Amino acid sequence: MSGGTGEGPRRVGRPRADRLRADSGRPPREELLRAAAELFTVRGYAATTTRAVAERAGMRQATMYHYFGGKEELLAELLESTVAPSLELSRRLLADTGRPAAVRLWELCRSDVLLLCGGPYDLGALYLLPELRGRRLAGFRRMRGELRDGYRALLAATPAGAALAADGDGAALALRNDLVFGLIEGVMLVRRSDPARPVAAFAEAAADAALRIAGLTPPDPLPSPRGPARPGG
Amino acid sequence: MSGGTGEGPRRVGRPRADRLRADSGRPPREELLRAAAELFTVRGYAATTTRAVAERAGMRQATMYHYFGGKEELLAELLESTVAPSLELSRRLLADTGRPAAVRLWELCRSDVLLLCGGPYDLGALYLLPELRGRRLAGFRRMRGELRDGYRALLAATPAGAALAADGDGAALALRNDLVFGLIEGVMLVRRSDPARPVAAFAEAAADAALRIAGLTPPDPLPSPRGPARPGG
Repeated sequence: MSGGTGEGPRRVGRPRADRLRADSGRPPREELLRAAAELFTVRGYAATTTRAVAERAGMRQATMYHYFGGKEELLAELLESTVAPSLELSRRLLADTGRPAAVRLWELCRSDVLLLCGGPYDLGALYLLPELRGRRLAGFRRMRGELRDGYRALLAATPAGAALAADGDGAALALRNDLVFGLIEGVMLVRRSDPARPVAAFAEAAADAALRIAGLTPPDPLPSPRGPARPGG
Repeated sequence: MSGGTGEGPRRVGRPRADRLRADSGRPPREELLRAAAELFTVRGYAATTTRAVAERAGMRQATMYHYFGGKEELLAELLESTVAPSLELSRRLLADTGRPAAVRLWELCRSDVLLLCGGPYDLGALYLLPELRGRRLAGFRRMRGELRDGYRALLAATPAGAALAADGDGAALALRNDLVFGLIEGVMLVRRSDPARPVAAFAEAAADAALRIAGLTPPDPLPSPRGPARPGG
């Protein structure tokens, strides 16, 4: 976040890369993250060197190491950026007990799909890397687990979720929640094949589908902030 | 499929690899596919060389090229194996018009989850490789598109699907189908974090969830081959 905007590299090795940096006006740290996001998702993580990331960001490799300890640290930060905003939103929504839990769950789902599918790079593609099992990525795995718990807490606060929670040891609730969570993360796979579809409508449709999985057949009109009722359902 | 069982390598370079081959008794082609599946999913596709695949399968690189044109051909065949059985099943189920379409869709979903999550290797992890955009993988992409069409045809044959199809230009049906398809492929992402859960029950729960997304609130009892009705729903 802080640290570094004023201390960017004075000299760069290659004019093309230099131009990239000069065009953007972004702090070096952000420039490196963007370069890594592009290369990891387009070329692949294993096929990308730290040198290539540095060059793409318009700086020398040695300068890059001033900001990041290496490739895995770039990967960790990118992955955490696909979870952190949703995790924060889930906490706010959980505290917002004045509104129906189903509406709050719907909002979390929609927002999460927008986060996962809406950026310029397909960061969700990094979720299936074998490198995710590495020790340096423990922070991301923990945050993703906490987000899943946030989904479960919201689900448990709905009538359908409460019924599932009352049924035994919590396994039924956990399983149903994993299917909701799996849908939200899984729509990335579908969206990749059809990137032309508008993401906003897709995110709403996915949130509707998540409620249906939860056992919350959307009422008609669905009490949501979307405005007028939709036909069918 | 055929070709090769009798013409395996007579000599192998390394004793450890030789032992692997001798233990399995599998044809060389299959041995190579297993080795590739393991290395691509555990080490990663980009990080795996054809030499490593050959060694893991207990043969020399030159022998491997007798069976496969290279790494991309191994990847293509592995990916097609994650789709081909479901594609064939979808065609059989489509033709089986004597039974309710919802039941047939449920069976396709369950079977597909078992295929995607049931094998010894996590081949679904290969779905997000940037290399999937390559020309050599056009066959896999086509088959996956055909499977998605199979899902859509079954969905369209259900009452809820027919209602969606009647509503406009088919976009509503296609979107709903993509969410069903996204769930089925997406459960791989969830299953990875919790591999201890029995896959059979997980596949049934995912098929239930797919019907809910489709707008087919499972009747109670659900007309499925699973036997007694479940409580709740």
